[in-house]
Amino acid sequence: MSEVYAARRTRLRERCQAGGSASALVSRPANVRYLAGAAPHGAVLLLGRHEDVLVCADPPDGRTDLAGLPDQELRLHALPGPGGDPAVAAAGLAAAEGADSLALEEHHVTVARHRAVRSVAPRVRLADLGGAVEQLRIVKDEEEISCLRIGAEIADQALGELLESILVGRTERHLALELERRLVDHGADGPAFPTSVGTGPNAGRRGHRPTDRRVEEGDFLSVCLGANYRGYRCEIGRTFVIGTAPADWQIELYDLVFAAQRAGRESLVPGAAYRDVDRAARQVLGSAGYTQGLLPLTGHGVGLEIDEDPQLAPAAMGKLDACVPVTVEPGVHLPGRGGVRIDDTLVVRPEADGGPELLTITTKELLAL
Amino acid sequence: MSEVYAARRTRLRERCQAGGSASALVSRPANVRYLAGAAPHGAVLLLGRHEDVLVCADPPDGRTDLAGLPDQELRLHALPGPGGDPAVAAAGLAAAEGADSLALEEHHVTVARHRAVRSVAPRVRLADLGGAVEQLRIVKDEEEISCLRIGAEIADQALGELLESILVGRTERHLALELERRLVDHGADGPAFPTSVGTGPNAGRRGHRPTDRRVEEGDFLSVCLGANYRGYRCEIGRTFVIGTAPADWQIELYDLVFAAQRAGRESLVPGAAYRDVDRAARQVLGSAGYTQGLLPLTGHGVGLEIDEDPQLAPAAMGKLDACVPVTVEPGVHLPGRGGVRIDDTLVVRPEADGGPELLTITTKELLAL
Repeated sequence: MSEVYAARRTRLRERCQAGGSASALVSRPANVRYLAGAAPHGAVLLLGRHEDVLVCADPPDGRTDLAGLPDQELRLHALPGPGGDPAVAAAGLAAAEGADSLALEEHHVTVARHRAVRSVAPRVRLADLGGAVEQLRIVKDEEEISCLRIGAEIADQALGELLESILVGRTERHLALELERRLVDHGADGPAFPTSVGTGPNAGRRGHRPTDRRVEEGDFLSVCLGANYRGYRCEIGRTFVIGTAPADWQIELYDLVFAAQRAGRESLVPGAAYRDVDRAARQVLGSAGYTQGLLPLTGHGVGLEIDEDPQLAPAAMGKLDACVPVTVEPGVHLPGRGGVRIDDTLVVRPEADGGPELLTITTKELLAL
Repeated sequence: MSEVYAARRTRLRERCQAGGSASALVSRPANVRYLAGAAPHGAVLLLGRHEDVLVCADPPDGRTDLAGLPDQELRLHALPGPGGDPAVAAAGLAAAEGADSLALEEHHVTVARHRAVRSVAPRVRLADLGGAVEQLRIVKDEEEISCLRIGAEIADQALGELLESILVGRTERHLALELERRLVDHGADGPAFPTSVGTGPNAGRRGHRPTDRRVEEGDFLSVCLGANYRGYRCEIGRTFVIGTAPADWQIELYDLVFAAQRAGRESLVPGAAYRDVDRAARQVLGSAGYTQGLLPLTGHGVGLEIDEDPQLAPAAMGKLDACVPVTVEPGVHLPGRGGVRIDDTLVVRPEADGGPELLTITTKELLAL
């Protein structure tokens, strides 16, 4: 594995040098993990002139975090005592290497931390690394995609088991906890994000926090969950009806959101503009008169974070590449009545390879439970 | 309730004015919640010259977050569309009010965000609010303490139920999940932090992440959990032995850590230096030869965050006040063999009021389960 991380650091180093900085200090945890294979709490990564160093707040606890390490080409440097800032120590190392310039993640480093870094490296020019690592992370390798695929299988299993159990009378909160337990039962390191379960008027609300409301006959029930597998986070969302016969308005709303979600999925081709994927789904909802109160985005990238680049939104700039995993998750929520969200994680693939790869395979038929 | 938050904002405003800033922009979520009674995702609080404004990223979802609001003296301002930065909008409001100076939390605001704030308020002098709000949060009112007390009762209940169940053969991961489910069953909004369960060689390690290791006869089993009740987070940690008869080394180690923890608890009096509480516990361990590999701190404050000021550590400056809730959590971990941690949440009280108030009342006898 370790060559993978070394290769990623080489790509980043090339970008930095193109940007005029020989050295970079990476502090955002997901970025550190992407480049080092591990991100012990508080650790930062120095891409130095002479060597790469993972600077840890204190001797890291191996078992979980340091999977992948030791990496031949990465030196591990643990701060001697508590209380020190690894970023400040890393800047000191860069200065000692005679770095003339050091690029920091100014979207992550606080003003106070930046000042502390400057004070230990007064002769080093501090530059902005910007979202360079986030950009590298957008296109995944097959190793990363297989982690997402396994995570998606785990989420499908957990959801499938829930559907076989009695739901009426149980609270959103308990259903969410049960789903998270099942994720772990099936091998997840944990939930990818707080599991969302919404019933009745809460159904279809993105990111709804489970409450003590109980599932009732006739409710919409919407569920959104994901597994964290080896640090990779996927997402699946489904909406069901409780009871034997869905009401007409429920069937209509479901069919509409399903059509919008399919339109989004079908527009996932290499070269498609992010905004066009969003428009494809949004147009279907708009054609039925739903233009207000829609989600600001139709989907987003997933990987080491559950919400990463790209954003599939009206104002998003950029085009999809192959091997980019994204969610497609349109929804409609009617205040006081509830609503529908359908959410899949897919990987963009060329037509020649069969088009978008659906990772979350739980049925999208309207099930009456 | 809303007067409580208004009074807190008044105290902060007085500090700001003493520091030369008429206006302040609070962005750290726990600080926003402390001053506004709610912290919708991404919201920031502007303490302006003429009014206080809670600036939200988008129309906030009332049910959970806005408990406590609306607050007569606090205006709610939601950004019209997605993608905007509430801090930038708040700075714009401050500039429109003619603020000459605006204090930001430079330990929380990123360099990039600071730059964006500066660009919308070029004529406003940007100052550092520092940890002013964190300092206000150290001493709790009885309302806050009662939330911590209820949270501690919930954690005691969850732990008590676990002890009545069969433990041998179950994994750390499942025990942790069951504890979190029980916390919610008993009325917690959720766990205060990721529940830690360590068995055998993992026992006694602070912040140990549960693994798939199963509980075995003769193991030490250490558990650390807490409830989040109305945003307030408490902590309890206990260590048990599995099987009928603890080994001599287990009894000796337990008695030692117990003595250290008691020494720490007994030193919790108003006016005691933070470092003296740490020393009281550390000396007991040191007198038995345990000086290496100890925790960098003996305890810490709890409240809206599980780890807040003060730190009870060797180099900590400052003295305890009454009504400051802290943990006392010394431990010893023997690599390869496991160890013991005992962790309580207590509130500092004057002798006249009976001394420190123990919130987590589960027995600290060495139980053999």
